[in-house]
Amino acid sequence: MQKSSREPVFLYTDEQVREKSPIARSFLEQREVQNKAVDEANNKLLKRIYNVDHNAYLEGGALAARTKELMGLVASAALRCDDCINYHIIQSYRLGASRAEQEESINIATVVGGTIVVPHLRRAYMLLGELYA
Amino acid sequence: MQKSSREPVFLYTDEQVREKSPIARSFLEQREVQNKAVDEANNKLLKRIYNVDHNAYLEGGALAARTKELMGLVASAALRCDDCINYHIIQSYRLGASRAEQEESINIATVVGGTIVVPHLRRAYMLLGELYA
Amino acid sequence: MQKSSREPVFLYTDEQVREKSPIARSFLEQREVQNKAVDEANNKLLKRIYNVDHNAYLEGGALAARTKELMGLVASAALRCDDCINYHIIQSYRLGASRAEQEESINIATVVGGTIVVPHLRRAYMLLGELYA
Amino acid sequence: MQKSSREPVFLYTDEQVREKSPIARSFLEQREVQNKAVDEANNKLLKRIYNVDHNAYLEGGALAARTKELMGLVASAALRCDDCINYHIIQSYRLGASRAEQEESINIATVVGGTIVVPHLRRAYMLLGELYA
Amino acid sequence: MQKSSREPVFLYTDEQVREKSPIARSFLEQREVQNKAVDEANNKLLKRIYNVDHNAYLEGGALAARTKELMGLVASAALRCDDCINYHIIQSYRLGASRAEQEESINIATVVGGTIVVPHLRRAYMLLGELYA
Amino acid sequence: MQKSSREPVFLYTDEQVREKSPIARSFLEQREVQNKAVDEANNKLLKRIYNVDHNAYLEGGALAARTKELMGLVASAALRCDDCINYHIIQSYRLGASRAEQEESINIATVVGGTIVVPHLRRAYMLLGELYA
Repeated sequence: MQKSSREPVFLYTDEQVREKSPIARSFLEQREVQNKAVDEANNKLLKRIYNVDHNAYLEGGALAARTKELMGLVASAALRCDDCINYHIIQSYRLGASRAEQEESINIATVVGGTIVVPHLRRAYMLLGELYA
Repeated sequence: MQKSSREPVFLYTDEQVREKSPIARSFLEQREVQNKAVDEANNKLLKRIYNVDHNAYLEGGALAARTKELMGLVASAALRCDDCINYHIIQSYRLGASRAEQEESINIATVVGGTIVVPHLRRAYMLLGELYA
Repeated sequence: MQKSSREPVFLYTDEQVREKSPIARSFLEQREVQNKAVDEANNKLLKRIYNVDHNAYLEGGALAARTKELMGLVASAALRCDDCINYHIIQSYRLGASRAEQEESINIATVVGGTIVVPHLRRAYMLLGELYA
Repeated sequence: MQKSSREPVFLYTDEQVREKSPIARSFLEQREVQNKAVDEANNKLLKRIYNVDHNAYLEGGALAARTKELMGLVASAALRCDDCINYHIIQSYRLGASRAEQEESINIATVVGGTIVVPHLRRAYMLLGELYA
Repeated sequence: MQKSSREPVFLYTDEQVREKSPIARSFLEQREVQNKAVDEANNKLLKRIYNVDHNAYLEGGALAARTKELMGLVASAALRCDDCINYHIIQSYRLGASRAEQEESINIATVVGGTIVVPHLRRAYMLLGELYA
Repeated sequence: MQKSSREPVFLYTDEQVREKSPIARSFLEQREVQNKAVDEANNKLLKRIYNVDHNAYLEGGALAARTKELMGLVASAALRCDDCINYHIIQSYRLGASRAEQEESINIATVVGGTIVVPHLRRAYMLLGELYA
């Protein structure tokens, strides 16, 4: 039987993240402005894509939301998307992932994806440094 | 019989685009400076690559130039290249593509390419917002 | 006003495609077996992804279904996915795309994506050769 | 304090996997032949790469070996590498991952990486079908 | 002053390669059939792309043709294109590259591109084994 | 017999590069700050990845360090990583590569990787312009 999906319980609010990390604040503010432009366009198919994306990281499945956010980080780092990396680091942090868990997730992406991941990893470590200070 | 290739007729000049959109202006100015550096190097093979690239988007084939610019947008978004996305959005706009056509093209790229396309899509919507204001 | 989405009208049935092209038949048969395995798993999130994918290529939007299938071909070729290329070539063919339109779409993907697209393009031409014989 | 790395304890041997799944057997046999050719070349740098790769998936870190194998699956699916997907599905299975955990990991990769992941996912489901029969 | 481009002098003919390596023979035969289908289509833009591609690997520039073929191998392995890898290994071999040079080129691609390159590398070593037997 | 690996002899120091090129200075300074954050984290696996990476570009193998740095440039441009491109251009310059050699290496990556490489190539030419002024 498939358990029902539900929103994860975050240890930290979005606002607490912004207060702790200037890198996170800058990223989240820019993302907010841009998402507002996307929302206003009201593109139906895109809204469904956003919705599926949201549902992929909920609690109630076989894997904890935290594990899935760390997996989102792995996929994002392997595909080298800075904004996606920032987002999943922040979500994993908010769900209680330790710094060591974040680093090991990035390690997997770097082993699989190679040294081209390294510049993204360097920027990720700057964000990790602020969040786990 | 293959119809002869020819330059497309643009509805808007490059200058009109720069006046309408600060994002487009900033992108086109930077591109101009960089292309000048490339031109001065006078690398023969590279000039041929530029030439083939130019010829791929001409009128006179089976598909209209506008459709091919939108396809250039699809390929650029699928491969996640911000500068390429900006360029093909501007060219499609100059050839009379509607905002809805641009959005649907980006949708195809996002469905095929996944949510790692989303950060690029967000930036694309900022440009679309200025061009179609 | 957004027009309502609806299924496109195909010029050729799936069966007619299989009869015309052994490459298409082989691909569609294998895909059918594999999709059956996916369907039986009944993974909710995956079904939603399949559903969004289906909706991206419907009629009733700003672009014709045929144009969007050709764009799916562009994205698939740029990202070098043989099965996706086969699928979108077949769908474009079924919707009445000419061989020249298919070739120009692949040209855009090859210019943008480079010569690593060429091995996929070669295989695509084998399929085009059968479909448009 | 960093815990010492150590080999994970597998629930199933490589031989049991081969007996249960013809797809796994075929993959592992081919991989064995090819790895033999690589081993004989005795390329020093490559041996170090293999070694780092091996160390990335050990027990004793912040994440369980099973979770890291599932993350290897996520990265492999996001980067669309069939052999890598097969390998990490098998390793995750041998470490006790449930089928639902495997599917959710693939879901994350498909959401992030898009429908170009789907052909790889279809083949992955054929392997999952045999392993979890 | 730019030296004039010219065809490289091969140490081995295409036929000698086919006689030495069954893997090379199989690849070259299939490529020949497929290229014939591409040639018959007589797509102008595609012929120009093929032409630029040919010109990129000629003698008479700053780098020897052999070095550029090895660089083609690096790019092909980094982008994980088996047919491209086969082609550049064969061309490098025909131009006198040693096995060690081929392996070091592949090493660079694997370090930069990560372990997802490894399945392609394994297949490349099977071809190297036959060519340098 | 495999020759022993050893550090390459650079024609220019890191400091001379920074004095000659503002782009290089800005890149190297940012990289230094970020690498410091990575070093402080003291992640064992990551240190091994850095170490393997360092060893891939040493003298004493079949290919000169300069050739391998140019190959690192090819892989970086094909995979479209600006920081990696900057780094390998600088290292190649420090090892005595001519501007023509750098351009031809980038040409190979652009032919193989397509016009999506062009925006990265434009930025690379800005750096080349400063280093070879």
